[in-house]
Amino acid sequence: MEHLEGRQSVYAALQARQRRFQVILLAHGSHTEKLQDLLDLAAELNVPTKTVERRELDHLAHGGSHGGVLAIVTPRPRTTVTQLLEIVDALRQPPLLLLLEGVDDSRNLGFTLRSAEALGVHAVLIKKHLWDFDPVEVARPASGAYERIPLVQIENVDPLRELQKRGIRLYGCIAGAKRTIYDRNLAKPVILAIGGEKRGLSGAVREVCDRFVTIPTVGGPSSLSLSHAGAIVMAEAARQRRRLEADTDLERRGL
Amino acid sequence: MEHLEGRQSVYAALQARQRRFQVILLAHGSHTEKLQDLLDLAAELNVPTKTVERRELDHLAHGGSHGGVLAIVTPRPRTTVTQLLEIVDALRQPPLLLLLEGVDDSRNLGFTLRSAEALGVHAVLIKKHLWDFDPVEVARPASGAYERIPLVQIENVDPLRELQKRGIRLYGCIAGAKRTIYDRNLAKPVILAIGGEKRGLSGAVREVCDRFVTIPTVGGPSSLSLSHAGAIVMAEAARQRRRLEADTDLERRGL
Repeated sequence: MEHLEGRQSVYAALQARQRRFQVILLAHGSHTEKLQDLLDLAAELNVPTKTVERRELDHLAHGGSHGGVLAIVTPRPRTTVTQLLEIVDALRQPPLLLLLEGVDDSRNLGFTLRSAEALGVHAVLIKKHLWDFDPVEVARPASGAYERIPLVQIENVDPLRELQKRGIRLYGCIAGAKRTIYDRNLAKPVILAIGGEKRGLSGAVREVCDRFVTIPTVGGPSSLSLSHAGAIVMAEAARQRRRLEADTDLERRGL
Repeated sequence: MEHLEGRQSVYAALQARQRRFQVILLAHGSHTEKLQDLLDLAAELNVPTKTVERRELDHLAHGGSHGGVLAIVTPRPRTTVTQLLEIVDALRQPPLLLLLEGVDDSRNLGFTLRSAEALGVHAVLIKKHLWDFDPVEVARPASGAYERIPLVQIENVDPLRELQKRGIRLYGCIAGAKRTIYDRNLAKPVILAIGGEKRGLSGAVREVCDRFVTIPTVGGPSSLSLSHAGAIVMAEAARQRRRLEADTDLERRGL
């Protein structure tokens, strides 16, 4: 069992119905009016709730930001590669996937999952390395997105080749690539691959990349963090897709 | 006095020459070849170094990621509003400023300063509220940018009005604005204002905003964090500026 902290994470997990809930713990004196949606849904799903002393929650929680709500739950099942391929095959839009390699910070992974969902990314792939993340630390900054967005851990590049066979291009984001994210067509089916800050993308991933792109920066000693680089490249793919949709819409209306 | 952790932060602070150094502490057995640039610069600036037991550094440091380097230094002087106006007046390009309101996470502020520098932002303004940040926690994720980028804490909107008098427009990023960041001209002199996740931009700032913009997202329960929203809007301003420069360059060459 693991736990979820905070109203938003717990409510999102109830809605997503991916986990089994043992119990939801509420701190004595929590504002129940703010929690009404959560309590209603818990009742509907027959999830027991229990009021406890706040210090008991403080003891269980990783940080002080649980806001009086904590749930004891089964881990969220990871999306398998087979499920990912089914998701991709069922899409009515060009797939937009994110691949992260060498992530070593749970909170930044959480923030990235949150942005991925907000920007219309269909699934996030993480290349498994030495590091295995702490789901509690990921879930909190993800603000519910961890419960909803498909997250696939891959061991090697085989799943990437499977995706490529389906016509999805793998774009490696690397410093010093000739072309920028702004002069590549990211509205087509793409996997956007971003490497960790220490080593960048591995040789194994670079070898299977179809194209390389860079995010232009002013240079010098400055650089972007993995999580901000991810946000920027996902937003650019989303921008291009919206523009394409707008153009198609104009054409359809004969303008 | 405060301290700086990690090779990158300490080296950036030596280079920026904004702080006075009391001493640089190095853990026994640190790889001195990796630190050669730092040691050379410290010697040039007459900053004493001292080798200590690693556990002494662990004791002083906030986290375990100091990598064997820690410096005892005076705080980095904050940029004053007067200095900011001088910086803006001296620019040869249209000013690009970032205003953050309601930030409550030191690490995310650090990451944002890092991206701001990489994306060509000239200065970052923080509207001071109840929260005062921990400079050590900001400096580390900023990866040196905290030492270099002008950071101005403002108490009220008066400095914004001063900047507006200079022809700089204040763009408030808010959910639900009609126009997106992609259909506004951010290549002109702008301040990009982003509000915290709990309350967004304050009424006081909204009142002086010239325009409102939004970052398009897929909607539903998804949302962007303050720090990722900042990265995306700064990158878009940088993209527009680069495109304008490229166009101007073509015109100049008569193409």
